[in-house]
Amino acid sequence: MAATTEIEKNSIEEEAEQVVNPWEVSSKGKIDYDKLIDRFGCQKLDDALISRIERLTSRTPHVFLRRRVFFAHRDVAEILDAYERGDKFYLYTGRGPSSEALHLGHLIPFMFTKYLQDVFKVPLVIQLTDDEKFFWKNLTVEECRRLARENAKDIIACGFDISKTFIFSDFNYVGGSFYKNMCEVATRVTYNQAVGIFGFAGEDHIGKVSFPPVQAVPSFPSSFPHLFSGKENLRCLIPCAIDQDPYFRMTRDVAPRMGFNKPALIESIFFPALQGETGKMSASDPNSAIYVTDSAKDIKNKVNKHAFSGGQDSIEKHRQLGANLEVDIPIKYLSFFLEDDAELEHIKKEYGEGRMLTGEVKQRLVQVLTEVVERHRRARASVTEEMVDAFMAVRPLPHMFD
Amino acid sequence: MAATTEIEKNSIEEEAEQVVNPWEVSSKGKIDYDKLIDRFGCQKLDDALISRIERLTSRTPHVFLRRRVFFAHRDVAEILDAYERGDKFYLYTGRGPSSEALHLGHLIPFMFTKYLQDVFKVPLVIQLTDDEKFFWKNLTVEECRRLARENAKDIIACGFDISKTFIFSDFNYVGGSFYKNMCEVATRVTYNQAVGIFGFAGEDHIGKVSFPPVQAVPSFPSSFPHLFSGKENLRCLIPCAIDQDPYFRMTRDVAPRMGFNKPALIESIFFPALQGETGKMSASDPNSAIYVTDSAKDIKNKVNKHAFSGGQDSIEKHRQLGANLEVDIPIKYLSFFLEDDAELEHIKKEYGEGRMLTGEVKQRLVQVLTEVVERHRRARASVTEEMVDAFMAVRPLPHMFD
Repeated sequence: MAATTEIEKNSIEEEAEQVVNPWEVSSKGKIDYDKLIDRFGCQKLDDALISRIERLTSRTPHVFLRRRVFFAHRDVAEILDAYERGDKFYLYTGRGPSSEALHLGHLIPFMFTKYLQDVFKVPLVIQLTDDEKFFWKNLTVEECRRLARENAKDIIACGFDISKTFIFSDFNYVGGSFYKNMCEVATRVTYNQAVGIFGFAGEDHIGKVSFPPVQAVPSFPSSFPHLFSGKENLRCLIPCAIDQDPYFRMTRDVAPRMGFNKPALIESIFFPALQGETGKMSASDPNSAIYVTDSAKDIKNKVNKHAFSGGQDSIEKHRQLGANLEVDIPIKYLSFFLEDDAELEHIKKEYGEGRMLTGEVKQRLVQVLTEVVERHRRARASVTEEMVDAFMAVRPLPHMFD
Repeated sequence: MAATTEIEKNSIEEEAEQVVNPWEVSSKGKIDYDKLIDRFGCQKLDDALISRIERLTSRTPHVFLRRRVFFAHRDVAEILDAYERGDKFYLYTGRGPSSEALHLGHLIPFMFTKYLQDVFKVPLVIQLTDDEKFFWKNLTVEECRRLARENAKDIIACGFDISKTFIFSDFNYVGGSFYKNMCEVATRVTYNQAVGIFGFAGEDHIGKVSFPPVQAVPSFPSSFPHLFSGKENLRCLIPCAIDQDPYFRMTRDVAPRMGFNKPALIESIFFPALQGETGKMSASDPNSAIYVTDSAKDIKNKVNKHAFSGGQDSIEKHRQLGANLEVDIPIKYLSFFLEDDAELEHIKKEYGEGRMLTGEVKQRLVQVLTEVVERHRRARASVTEEMVDAFMAVRPLPHMFD
């Protein structure tokens, strides 16, 4: 796809029924992901590509691939071509640290990125955009930095390999080669283009206008001289949710004009709110999400009280008609976190045909979520301040490709 | 003056006859500096303030004060109040390193800043905005960094005290506390305000929109933790040419909202082009300026050939009418660089009344300029790479107030 085509995607107007950008995800009904692929100009992740990943890694594809949680991409075929030729690549993901406690949706890109690091044996950079949160949320710089460090603990708890992983916060790391690349990107994006891509208004402060290059430049190896000096052609693969696509559409447009490879992307759907699938979960509504800090009792309460059910109003009617799986949140959540494909199929069949009741499905979901959250809580409790310092130290990673 | 009043100065339209901003200085006739003071909202530097500086420093005021080369200010009285109470302040000046060889106009703020450092015994930070030049000129990052280093040598040659002076380039120094302050400033300026202050257009790249906070934050002590940690209330005085006022109007508007003092300013007129006084000299027209690299012969040629004369067409007419000193460039240049007040008055009288001819005035000017340039050339030749490294090292300055 030609460079101009990607940035031209800016000018396509958002339909009022569906708004997806890095700061807002909302839709009147279910999000139409096919329409997003079309509007953003990315590609659908198809069976052939997933089979190819399976073949190249000799591992069962991650549940998020099998279930199409990651459903779209840009240039993943090119990354696999390079990998097959023996060339390496690196992974880049990140998080805007706006809340103390992560919810399960926040863990998805990290769980998936850990899988990619494990199976491809590649280095990973994780950007904590504390500056972004300072620009968009009403928080102090110090609060944003504190949250970045707290979130780093949750990220480390996902099990990343310290010999292959560099975590950095913008307030700590921006400068030097990173700042130079920010300036190079900034000269290649006009204000009008930024408005087209991100929807800025004249009353917005200029920090917002300044920020997109900050999220763009981890896509370029030269932003990390301590890691990739002499490896300026190393390709970058970015696992992220689809709402981050605008940043990387911009990045892919400027990359060739800076003499760099375009970063490849592998993009996920959103983890739905307990109340139903119309957007991302909101960290500001505690009942819309399961947090990694929720107790087993919290989880049970939230699932039983708030998880939107596709089951029928009465047992009789349910036995007769079965559940509407399309809108059922317990089934959606199980499809993210129940690893056993056969069991998931079984539950969908039994529930969809009315033999299983909502209560039984929710009970299984509570077990699955409690296990995920418990595992995370234990892992996070063992993350020390020293480990955070170690992951965030600006250092070479001599074993990053081993 | 209330904060809002200063930033509201944005909205006053530039008159078409006179454009003064950091990137353009042009006017149809002579620049009307009184009108600039009025439009920008700064104050005229008056006799009382200069007498007060003389009294506080026990030194004859610098020729640039006596001749009103520095003609406008903001809050210099407050700086002097603080100084009189025994409080210290620091100086901040800078340069956009767009050309290899400086011309005499470039030296003026540095000569004056050296005087201020000497008489007040205060620390000084000098910003080399290599990023600005990258954003505005068609140069590579590497070329901008190289020019910054070359220009640093010319600046060091002005005689700054290394125990009180920190020189930094943005590409090297942006990051950490400096970046945090940039972000704090950026959140307090809307795009519309930036357009009002700086005249950005939608087709301008976002690097330009991002830059003003970079020039703003050296005004705040906390941008230099290695120098001013624990001295967050230290006041800042900025000697600069009047075209830089927009940056600091913006800075003064945001400062109190960040809990900082507003920086004070002392602002100069422009050093006129050899061809006449309608703007700043242009580094791109070699015959418009005397460069610090010009030979004695170059200087003689340029002055004799290109310096606009207010003398009459014929000797007879000149003897009868005398020279028009208002438009005469040799007299303007002498008023910047001939230190002897009595001699300058004598020349003005003799020339203005026709007893001295243009050729004689130009001859004296050639002597004066050759001496300035020769002195600079010798000083610059003795600046080593190690001295540049030493001035630019991020280090505490334990004797900065001695």
